[in-house]
Amino acid sequence: MKLPERVRLVEVGPRDGLQNEKMPISVEDKVRLVNDLSETGLDYIEVGSFVSPRWVPQMAGSHEVFSKIQYRAGITYAALTPNLRGFEAALEADVKEVAVFAAASESFSQRNINCSIAESLKRFIPVMQAAEHHGIAVRGYVSCVLGCPYEGYIPPLQVARVARELWDMGCYEISLGDTIGTGTPGAARCLIECVAQHVPRPRLAAHFHDTYGQALANLYAVLLEGVCVIDSSVAGLGGCPYASGASGNVSTEDVLYMLNGLGIPTGVDLPRLINAGQRICQVLGRENGSRVARAFTKS
Amino acid sequence: MKLPERVRLVEVGPRDGLQNEKMPISVEDKVRLVNDLSETGLDYIEVGSFVSPRWVPQMAGSHEVFSKIQYRAGITYAALTPNLRGFEAALEADVKEVAVFAAASESFSQRNINCSIAESLKRFIPVMQAAEHHGIAVRGYVSCVLGCPYEGYIPPLQVARVARELWDMGCYEISLGDTIGTGTPGAARCLIECVAQHVPRPRLAAHFHDTYGQALANLYAVLLEGVCVIDSSVAGLGGCPYASGASGNVSTEDVLYMLNGLGIPTGVDLPRLINAGQRICQVLGRENGSRVARAFTKS
Repeated sequence: MKLPERVRLVEVGPRDGLQNEKMPISVEDKVRLVNDLSETGLDYIEVGSFVSPRWVPQMAGSHEVFSKIQYRAGITYAALTPNLRGFEAALEADVKEVAVFAAASESFSQRNINCSIAESLKRFIPVMQAAEHHGIAVRGYVSCVLGCPYEGYIPPLQVARVARELWDMGCYEISLGDTIGTGTPGAARCLIECVAQHVPRPRLAAHFHDTYGQALANLYAVLLEGVCVIDSSVAGLGGCPYASGASGNVSTEDVLYMLNGLGIPTGVDLPRLINAGQRICQVLGRENGSRVARAFTKS
Repeated sequence: MKLPERVRLVEVGPRDGLQNEKMPISVEDKVRLVNDLSETGLDYIEVGSFVSPRWVPQMAGSHEVFSKIQYRAGITYAALTPNLRGFEAALEADVKEVAVFAAASESFSQRNINCSIAESLKRFIPVMQAAEHHGIAVRGYVSCVLGCPYEGYIPPLQVARVARELWDMGCYEISLGDTIGTGTPGAARCLIECVAQHVPRPRLAAHFHDTYGQALANLYAVLLEGVCVIDSSVAGLGGCPYASGASGNVSTEDVLYMLNGLGIPTGVDLPRLINAGQRICQVLGRENGSRVARAFTKS
C-alpha cells in the first residue's frame, strides 16, 4: 500500500458541476471559469457536453464555449458526448477529447437514459469508431459504482464488467463515479481491487461525490490502492439531483489540500484554484462548497 | 494495518460543540440534548465544563445541567475541569469523570490559557490527586496536535511529550486534538506512530476538526494505525457549515456513517443520532453541520 508518486486531477466543474447548478450561467462566465482554471496548472478540464439542451439546459452553448476559451498548450479540454450526434457536434466545435457515460446499475440506466446498460454501451460503438477515425481520445465514465439510488448495493463485479466493456471498446481511462456519494473507504478499496483485475490500475480514475461527507476518506482509501487520477469540481460545483441541498462533487480545493499534505505532486496551484472557485461562486450567488476555500477566505 | 474491531465514540457536542456556538442555549435545551444522546447507544457524553463563565459563557449552568439530566446506566457523563477549582465544582455536581486540557503548542498555550505548557501541566497535579482520592477517572486532551494557528507545524515528538506527561500523571486516555483542522492523513498517521511509542495505542483518541474537510480522511488514516476511540460532535456542533471562518468538530453522524460502512461496530444508532442532531439544530436555528444528516433529512 504505497501512495502514488503523482496524481492527475481531472477538473469536471465546468461540465459535471455546472450542469447540476440551478442558476443559469452565461457563455461568458463559463468561458471565464475555464480560462481561470487554465491558469491553475490543471492539465485536464471537462468544458461542456453535447447533449440535448432539452435534457440538460445548463450545457446549451457548449459549442460557443469551446469557440471562445483561450486554449493553453498542454491542457486537454474535453466534452461529454453521449451518442454519435453529440460526438459530431463536438467535432464541429473542434473538441480534441470526449467522454462517454454508462451506469453500473440497470435501474439507474433505465431511469436516467431510458435504456439498458447493454443498449447504452452499444450506442457508444459508433462514437468509438468515429473517434478512432478522427484520432480523438475517449474517456469512459461508469456511474453508481458504490451504490444506486434505486437498487442500493451494486456488486463490484458488475462495475468491473461495465468498466471492462468500455476499456475493451477503446476508452483509454475509466472514471468510476460514486454518483450518490454513499460509498465508504472499505467499499471503495474493494471496488478498486476488483475493477483493477479487468482494467489496468493506472487507467482507473476516482470520481467521488461528497453527499455523505465521505469523498476525501474514500479518495485516501483508493490512493492507497494505487489510483492516481482523481475527478473533482472546483468549489464543489454541482450536486446530485437525488440529494438536493446536500453537496455533490468533491471539491478540487479540498482534494488538492489533502494531496499537498500527503506530499503528492499535482502541478496545481491552490491559491489560484481558490480564486477561480470564489469567482464562479460569486457569479452563481452561492456559498463556496469547498471547506478549504471557506477556511482560507474567511474574513 | 488492520482496522479496529470496535470503535468507541466520545460525544463532545454538548461541551466542545456548544461552547463554540454563538447562539445562547438554555439549561433545558442542553438537558434535552444530553437525554436525546443518551438514547442513541453512545456510552460517553461530555456534558459540560466547570470553567469561569466569564471566559466561556456557553458553559454557565453546567452544574444545573448535571443535576437535571436523566442518568442511564452504562453511560459516562463527563465534564471538562481546567483546574482544582473546576474539579471541586464538578465534584459538587456529582460528576463521575472529568477531563483536563493541555496544548502541544507553546504559543497556543500562552495565548489561550495564558501560561506555558509546563505550567498548565503543573496545574493538573492537584486535580489528578483529588481525582484519585475521589476515585474519579481523568481523560487528557492535547490540542494543536496537527498544527497551531500561531506556530504552524508542530513536531509529533512535541505532542508525544505532552501526551506522555498527561499519561504519566494518571490520565487513562489521551485525546489528540487537531484543533484547527489543518491535518492531512499522512501527518495524522505519523503522529499516531510517534505518540504510540509513549502512550499505549488503545489509549489514544482522535479528536479531529473538519475545518478543511479533512477530518474523515484523517480518521480513516488513524483507524488504519489502530486508533479505536474517536471524539466527535453531533450535527457538527461547534462550527457553522456555511459561515465563513467556521471551524468545526467532525460530526458524529458522518463518522458513524463511515464506521458503519467499514463494518466497525460502535453500538450507536444512526437514525436516533440524526434526530438528536436535528432537534438541537432547530433550537440553535442553524443548518445541520452533518452531511449525512442533511442527505438523510432532505425534503
